[in-house]
Amino acid sequence: MDYYSRQISRLIDELSALPGIGNKSAQRLAFHILNMPEDRVEQLAHTILEAKQNVRYCKTCFTLTDDEECPICKNPERDHKTIMVVENTRDLAAYEKTGQYEGVYHVLHGAISPMLGIGPNDIKLKELMQRLQGDVNEVIIATNSSLEGETTAMYISKLIKPTGIKVSRIASGVPVGGDLEYIDEVTLLRALEGRVEL
Amino acid sequence: MDYYSRQISRLIDELSALPGIGNKSAQRLAFHILNMPEDRVEQLAHTILEAKQNVRYCKTCFTLTDDEECPICKNPERDHKTIMVVENTRDLAAYEKTGQYEGVYHVLHGAISPMLGIGPNDIKLKELMQRLQGDVNEVIIATNSSLEGETTAMYISKLIKPTGIKVSRIASGVPVGGDLEYIDEVTLLRALEGRVEL
Repeated sequence: MDYYSRQISRLIDELSALPGIGNKSAQRLAFHILNMPEDRVEQLAHTILEAKQNVRYCKTCFTLTDDEECPICKNPERDHKTIMVVENTRDLAAYEKTGQYEGVYHVLHGAISPMLGIGPNDIKLKELMQRLQGDVNEVIIATNSSLEGETTAMYISKLIKPTGIKVSRIASGVPVGGDLEYIDEVTLLRALEGRVEL
Repeated sequence: MDYYSRQISRLIDELSALPGIGNKSAQRLAFHILNMPEDRVEQLAHTILEAKQNVRYCKTCFTLTDDEECPICKNPERDHKTIMVVENTRDLAAYEKTGQYEGVYHVLHGAISPMLGIGPNDIKLKELMQRLQGDVNEVIIATNSSLEGETTAMYISKLIKPTGIKVSRIASGVPVGGDLEYIDEVTLLRALEGRVEL
């Protein structure tokens, strides 16, 4: 890209290395940033650095947070005996948005994937098993309904069952408002298998 | 968003203020950045700051560059008597990608828009007229074919005509490979008006 000067090219390259940002969007972003007031740009760079430097894993549930323990784990009004296991912090946020879940979480930071060489020791599974030594009533496995997510769910349930703690899996089926004709066969089959009597 | 800690929320807010980045993408970007190695994050922040601090307008054509004069204006092999007028640096880059244009550019940094209160004095128009005092054969107006771009083109051509310098406008019509049935009426009409004898 020699029609852009060196520093603009570098900025475009850096931005297009981010997920979901192609070359066109990176150009648009770069020129937007170059046209922003200098203090706003400094603030953006500062926020990025500060977040990276201070954000760490919650010591209990391993979600990303900027304190030793996250607000959910610190909250005495949550049900700390019910643990929902999710793959990452965004999945946790998705359930928090429902506003209906009262329990706490455990963030695995990934899922078991033999294809990608990710085994049980590469995710926060040991840490989950340690938590279960405490007073826990139920573990709800909310990993994705992908191959990796299902493998992980199966693996975890087999680990937990001998302990006598209740293990459940979130239901999979037709999404609310989903049009049957656009839904894949596996999901349709799951929805049929998981049918509930009315 | 109290399900994210303060610094993560701030990062998501900053990112979602960028153009074309909604809340979902901002979350995805934020967690990608938080998972990047620290030195890569520092490099990203540094590149943003450095580009903002060093990038300025080329003293001749007003494109964004990190030197006093941009590589195109400095290049003795370009035809400095032909000036293509564009709205912004991205439009310049689009024409440079064709690899066929030998002349130089003039970047207006905007277009006249009475709706948005942008007048002739808010874009680099005075600067263009100053350049025309020199030895110039032709001005090619390549502003967008939007209402603002057309207004600007008309305005510029009226300014230049008395000087005797040739003024042209890039053709508008059906894009190459475009399917007629998906093209708007105004473009179709333009294409008809601009028809060329075979």
